[in-house]
Amino acid sequence: MPISKLPQVFPRAEFLRRLAAVKDEMAKRDVEALVVTDNAHITYLTGSTARSFDTRGLVVSAREEQPTFILRWMDVPAAFQETFLDRDKVIGYPEELMGNPSKNGYDAVIDFLLEAGLADGRVGLEMGTLTVHSAEKFRARLQQAQIEDFSDIITSIRSVKNDLEIAVMKEAAAIADAGILHAAKVISPGMREADAIAEIVGALARGANGKPGTWITTPFLGASSRIGSPHVTWSEDVFGQGSQINLEIAGVRHGYTAPICRTFSIGKPSDRLLRIHEAQLAGLEVGLNSVRAGAVIGDVAHAIHRATERLGFKKRSRPGYGIGIDWMERTLSLQEGNLSVLKPNMTFHLHLGTWVEEDFGYSISESIRVTESGVEVLTKVPRELFVLG
Amino acid sequence: MPISKLPQVFPRAEFLRRLAAVKDEMAKRDVEALVVTDNAHITYLTGSTARSFDTRGLVVSAREEQPTFILRWMDVPAAFQETFLDRDKVIGYPEELMGNPSKNGYDAVIDFLLEAGLADGRVGLEMGTLTVHSAEKFRARLQQAQIEDFSDIITSIRSVKNDLEIAVMKEAAAIADAGILHAAKVISPGMREADAIAEIVGALARGANGKPGTWITTPFLGASSRIGSPHVTWSEDVFGQGSQINLEIAGVRHGYTAPICRTFSIGKPSDRLLRIHEAQLAGLEVGLNSVRAGAVIGDVAHAIHRATERLGFKKRSRPGYGIGIDWMERTLSLQEGNLSVLKPNMTFHLHLGTWVEEDFGYSISESIRVTESGVEVLTKVPRELFVLG
Repeated sequence: MPISKLPQVFPRAEFLRRLAAVKDEMAKRDVEALVVTDNAHITYLTGSTARSFDTRGLVVSAREEQPTFILRWMDVPAAFQETFLDRDKVIGYPEELMGNPSKNGYDAVIDFLLEAGLADGRVGLEMGTLTVHSAEKFRARLQQAQIEDFSDIITSIRSVKNDLEIAVMKEAAAIADAGILHAAKVISPGMREADAIAEIVGALARGANGKPGTWITTPFLGASSRIGSPHVTWSEDVFGQGSQINLEIAGVRHGYTAPICRTFSIGKPSDRLLRIHEAQLAGLEVGLNSVRAGAVIGDVAHAIHRATERLGFKKRSRPGYGIGIDWMERTLSLQEGNLSVLKPNMTFHLHLGTWVEEDFGYSISESIRVTESGVEVLTKVPRELFVLG
Repeated sequence: MPISKLPQVFPRAEFLRRLAAVKDEMAKRDVEALVVTDNAHITYLTGSTARSFDTRGLVVSAREEQPTFILRWMDVPAAFQETFLDRDKVIGYPEELMGNPSKNGYDAVIDFLLEAGLADGRVGLEMGTLTVHSAEKFRARLQQAQIEDFSDIITSIRSVKNDLEIAVMKEAAAIADAGILHAAKVISPGMREADAIAEIVGALARGANGKPGTWITTPFLGASSRIGSPHVTWSEDVFGQGSQINLEIAGVRHGYTAPICRTFSIGKPSDRLLRIHEAQLAGLEVGLNSVRAGAVIGDVAHAIHRATERLGFKKRSRPGYGIGIDWMERTLSLQEGNLSVLKPNMTFHLHLGTWVEEDFGYSISESIRVTESGVEVLTKVPRELFVLG
């Protein structure tokens, strides 16, 4: 039985809008064909959210309305079902390209470029997500083409969301909130860290407001002797009275990812923990008050660093970065000295907290949207140090 | 308070054994310093399992017992706690290298090589996991060095596990089993696919035999109109009477990943489903009977393809690949024509099943270990088509 499209997350017109923006950048660079290799960009331009280990490429031609998606043959039905692409715009490459020491899926992409007559002019290639071997393959097999590095150009385009994307980011943020609230409800002394994680990832899958999470990002959970490090996962320990727990999780809807950090204390928090919470919360609020369309990114970072410094817990790490599909967007780093200007509907993980000593750290954050006049906080749970029974 | 080491998964001697094997390969190539950039290889050589978006590198010097781990400053405490490395072998690079358009963590790695006098001879570099931009950075800044591509060499070393690693793979396999059995217990008509996923990822976190999962890999779940595709995640649908569910999950312990696939039918399975199950199960059993130390990989694949073909459901895709840290090992592909020979303690995902039509597919698999005389199946759940109430 022929398969049909799944319910589409965004209308066809939205993907054509995104493609038009990419084609504008191609035209500026006189690029006739673009090979997109970053999975997040493929999601952005087609709606495909499936992920696998295999190489895959999306070819955008200046001459054609729809791009052509080239991937392993077995992944073709899902790509057709999930995206707005016509059936003949999804092309499967054969199994012989799997586990092959000399060839991979990019050979099929190159074959397509050659057969479509797209390999004689300027060809855009996302070098920033391509390995040396694959880039050499393109150079060796596209001798007639001038290869133009197209890294991060689509990342910049997608850094400004439209309202449809913001709606999906809000769904993701509601899931992140649900994860934090569920953690606050279930964590108790005597519980294994792993059992708390089981509860939290369950909440991230169940989602919020009838909209399930569509992907599971592994939570970071630092507790006991590991509260001086971010990016650590749970251990085989059990929570005790007085345990501090630093939690970083994210909700995901259709690739769009909204992270949040909160810190928990089982029983009365120490004075040091209370003071760092106050300092970082103040920094977060200064950040929220500094964000608005037109503000310089470096100035927001500067204001945050000064605020936390005044309260005795200087934040050493950058206070945020752009977010969207697949969590972090590489092009927007919230750092002092960054002269980029905030635009409406840019979205950030505004991330306060700091790693003070090797044995002590704290973290609080929100997913936010830049508005004309200020900021909209997408994550909604109370901005507090959660004190648990 | 100074932090101390966490309980170590493997003894120091085990990491020194792995490093000795790497140094042997370095010596063969006259490489004095090796820069390891593949996260799975860093886990293999140090025990560090933390993951982040940031660049990080491990420098193995032929002259020194321990390698030097260079990563973002805030990730240093966890790297020290989790690995066997001495405190001065874990070096943090400053925040200025984050979100910096011209520099990244590899600049710190290059600085280290230059300062340690390791940049005048042959320097090994894992090109296969390095982007073009980063490779160019090494070439530009290490003008006195001869850069030698070291891709996949460590992957090949780690493809043969020792018994300590096999013990951890068994723990991971037991978690995968627990996920399948829990799915069989909870899935019922009327349940949202997402709620089944919540249960399954909870089981993967809780683990088995008192040993929790240490990472969550997002399950693949294909049902209703999506059973013709692997690598798809759940939808917002609800299971119904007659639903077929293709599930692929993995248990993880300390990076080591054991996958498994099983197919479920709510109510009586169709004849077509029963017949494909019989064919693929027969192929799986032929595969299990063909595996032994000394067998040629391509012959095992050939036997499987012929067996499924005889039963009318030819398997089109390769029937497996090497597994270990971070799921797939790139160097071992179970495909016809592969002349590599199986060795004891290689581990594979032996993956039967096929994607027959765009609207129909089926999957069954085991995580296995090659033994001198045959095979040990690490995953233990019944090899059946699960028929649920």
